[in-house]
Amino acid sequence: MNKSGKFYGIGVGPGDPTLITMKAAQILSKVDMVIAPAADKESLALKIARPYINCKVIEMNFPMISNKNKLNDIWDKNVKTIQEILQEGNDTAFITLGDPMIYSTYTYILSRLCGYEAETIPGITSFCAAASKINIPIVEGDAPFAVIPVKDKKLLEKTLKDFDNVVLMKISRNYDDVVKVLKENGFCAVLITHCGQEDEKIEFDLDKYLGRGVSYLSLIIAWRDKK
Amino acid sequence: MNKSGKFYGIGVGPGDPTLITMKAAQILSKVDMVIAPAADKESLALKIARPYINCKVIEMNFPMISNKNKLNDIWDKNVKTIQEILQEGNDTAFITLGDPMIYSTYTYILSRLCGYEAETIPGITSFCAAASKINIPIVEGDAPFAVIPVKDKKLLEKTLKDFDNVVLMKISRNYDDVVKVLKENGFCAVLITHCGQEDEKIEFDLDKYLGRGVSYLSLIIAWRDKK
Repeated sequence: MNKSGKFYGIGVGPGDPTLITMKAAQILSKVDMVIAPAADKESLALKIARPYINCKVIEMNFPMISNKNKLNDIWDKNVKTIQEILQEGNDTAFITLGDPMIYSTYTYILSRLCGYEAETIPGITSFCAAASKINIPIVEGDAPFAVIPVKDKKLLEKTLKDFDNVVLMKISRNYDDVVKVLKENGFCAVLITHCGQEDEKIEFDLDKYLGRGVSYLSLIIAWRDKK
Repeated sequence: MNKSGKFYGIGVGPGDPTLITMKAAQILSKVDMVIAPAADKESLALKIARPYINCKVIEMNFPMISNKNKLNDIWDKNVKTIQEILQEGNDTAFITLGDPMIYSTYTYILSRLCGYEAETIPGITSFCAAASKINIPIVEGDAPFAVIPVKDKKLLEKTLKDFDNVVLMKISRNYDDVVKVLKENGFCAVLITHCGQEDEKIEFDLDKYLGRGVSYLSLIIAWRDKK
């Protein structure tokens, strides 16, 4: 029986292929198989990693659906496929947008792969890339900061009372509410969409998108206006 | 008169030189001057970036002192030196540990360099690298997370009530209190010291360092135990 392959989780950063680490590029160039998660359309992670890959790529479907039973079946099938690939002795890299340890599909896969050797390579987060792009710090000195995927208004309102520096993710779900709550709490904010990609947008006037919505890959960096 | 040089802020990641981005390595190899901030001892950022540098390096002293007047004088002198270097037409990279937009000296420098062309290159944060190293997610799904440089017990206690996932930085200042508050609030935690460096330490038993203290470059990844 073959020795099982090693499983790598690789953060490829938010969009610009040059924001991948040397280590990630090096591992991508030497593994036997790359798995790119795709949610119904072409994998952005794969587009970023493509220049560094020298092997077969499997695009694995992780659809965004709400039916839990159906979702579980798909996940089980995907994990089984990965186990089979590893058992055949293939070193295998699972690529993931941004960083693998922050809001990533990879950690769910990893938790189901007990017994296999696994190494995770960190990636540039979308919020770090966005802050660099606009030359505005996320946080300085001894201040804490919070990262919030905005689900409900209440948690956002509470967090803006307690923190002067926040990063808001997944804001496409209730963009108008987010803008309103930021204003009511005296926050300055910048909207960044598709950071590092060809269609990147940076917008200091958040009102511009009210009633029109923003892309799923949008985030806001915000800070309390102390003037 | 020469055209002024371009100012780059470059995140070099937390310790492992291979966790630098392709873009950072590329810029470091082509600039005319590199500035490495040093706090009284050899610059760790410089140690990480050294393999990619082909030009003159200035180690600039940013001491950790509490005398504000003295500190201001040193900063003013440093900023003036950088302006002179840029005015001579030198493209200049200021390197910084981790990410330049999160708790970095760079953003204070940047804010004083109005009028010069500046580009910031994000870096791998210490907490992303640490989470990857221990194969434990910082956060999943729709949960928010908070990053807290622990200054006082009260803010920590409050945040642990509101968040299930936290990263604690600068814990060397009051390590024993931190461990106590985490326990009282039912959190699991891992201590990571000097992540990616030769003397890296990973400790799941936080009690081990009670009364002994930990290094300045230590952090804790913690999550509420839901079992």
